[in-house]
Amino acid sequence: MDLWYTEYHTEMVRFSIKIDKQLVSMQSEFQRIDVFESYEFGRILVLDGYLMLTEKDEFIYHEMIVHPPLAVNPKIKKVLVIGAGDGGTIRELTRYESLEHIDMVEIDEMVVDVCKEYLPHISCRLKDPRVNIYYEDGLKFVRTKQNEYDLIIVDSTDPFGPGEGLFTKEFYGNCFKALSEDGILINQHESPYYPRDAYAMQRAHQKIKSIFPISKVYQIHIPTYSSGHWLFGFASKKYDPVTHIDQDWWNGLGLKTKYYNTEIHQGSFALPNYVKELLANA
Amino acid sequence: MDLWYTEYHTEMVRFSIKIDKQLVSMQSEFQRIDVFESYEFGRILVLDGYLMLTEKDEFIYHEMIVHPPLAVNPKIKKVLVIGAGDGGTIRELTRYESLEHIDMVEIDEMVVDVCKEYLPHISCRLKDPRVNIYYEDGLKFVRTKQNEYDLIIVDSTDPFGPGEGLFTKEFYGNCFKALSEDGILINQHESPYYPRDAYAMQRAHQKIKSIFPISKVYQIHIPTYSSGHWLFGFASKKYDPVTHIDQDWWNGLGLKTKYYNTEIHQGSFALPNYVKELLANA
Repeated sequence: MDLWYTEYHTEMVRFSIKIDKQLVSMQSEFQRIDVFESYEFGRILVLDGYLMLTEKDEFIYHEMIVHPPLAVNPKIKKVLVIGAGDGGTIRELTRYESLEHIDMVEIDEMVVDVCKEYLPHISCRLKDPRVNIYYEDGLKFVRTKQNEYDLIIVDSTDPFGPGEGLFTKEFYGNCFKALSEDGILINQHESPYYPRDAYAMQRAHQKIKSIFPISKVYQIHIPTYSSGHWLFGFASKKYDPVTHIDQDWWNGLGLKTKYYNTEIHQGSFALPNYVKELLANA
Repeated sequence: MDLWYTEYHTEMVRFSIKIDKQLVSMQSEFQRIDVFESYEFGRILVLDGYLMLTEKDEFIYHEMIVHPPLAVNPKIKKVLVIGAGDGGTIRELTRYESLEHIDMVEIDEMVVDVCKEYLPHISCRLKDPRVNIYYEDGLKFVRTKQNEYDLIIVDSTDPFGPGEGLFTKEFYGNCFKALSEDGILINQHESPYYPRDAYAMQRAHQKIKSIFPISKVYQIHIPTYSSGHWLFGFASKKYDPVTHIDQDWWNGLGLKTKYYNTEIHQGSFALPNYVKELLANA
């Protein structure tokens, strides 16, 4: 059997993963959902043909979308997560005893069901008593909230298809309103490398920058994503993510992580010149 | 025409680049040399089937192998470069007026000739009067040197084929001997991500660590290399690369760079936990 899953990073670049077998293929109201068993990366989740995560390296994405804001503000109690149907972001969040309440708003219940069945190591903490799952459109959910969350994490798909509304100025403005006076917004910020991705990144950044007084970007290595060079946005009403990190508190927690540590927290906000220029010209 | 160059990052993962046409294919005494015109990355250089560089992102590799040691020790005058037949490392080095003498030892003259003809933006500074090119085996060349260089850059291929000897303990020991009392050794250090690459990285690191009192590793994003997560080694007799950087001097030079800056210099030495563990267990 010679079966390969291929993602086109551009029309001229493709990345292929050898597959043992397909585990499931479903069509929800919103998107096509596939899970494959691969040789190199364990199971992989694919939405509308795009690779969302692999068992081998999902830890990188999920640690780096969760731990930086928590290390910056140990007083965070109430969190809103938008998207994140695979459960990886919730798994990392629930490691913090200090968190009291986590709302997760995922538009597609079928993604959650598929991940519970086929990716149990990732969706393992969705039953934590602090977690409330809403199967709704995050865009609409956040409109009704005011001064309610200390942290919002936008763990979305790309800015086309079901995730498109999560890259609009209206949405970021509603996030600002839904956040407390020292609130933080983390969002997946695309990649700076290929022009189409970089353009999406610039548009997202320009909108967030126009709303939040502090708007930084940090980078990570995710080998199975387009170009392997991925960015997250850190927007905040009050805290600078580099100078305000509470290293002693975070290290005192004793959380075992495979990617995140307080040095890479700070190092990841140092960006290559070409990325800085793209962001400055956004 | 539907022509693709494919590199297998592992037996189960492949990366493919759409090609307009092949520009040259030669067989030297040491290896097969190919240059292709690609749509996404401009021209690409391939040795023995492995992608060495692309016009689009070679700046990342070449800036990051050259500028960190120079920013750490502005007094560097005499440099030895091993490998580097494409000329990119020399191009970056010759931007420093402070350098007086650069020896480049490349085993394969045909690589240099091909790059001069097909990659002139990269090989453009090989005629700088401070540059002396030796078409010899770097392993043998360095054996005869003692206390002669302030900096050695090992810009080699992977640890198999012609580059194999440049990953041995004997070679690193001879580099130590060839360096002045505050000398620095930079080497391309493979990738931490796929097990085969990580094993090569561990072996190289273990050997360098046993010889140099300071042996650090820094990471960069090179999207066209296996996993996109690449490492360089910074070994030194005296200077710690993070605490000893001379930011004012380097920024005062006014060099325009597309990747390197003094913040990412420091940030790139902060490594993910899984990489730190691989290095600690090397």
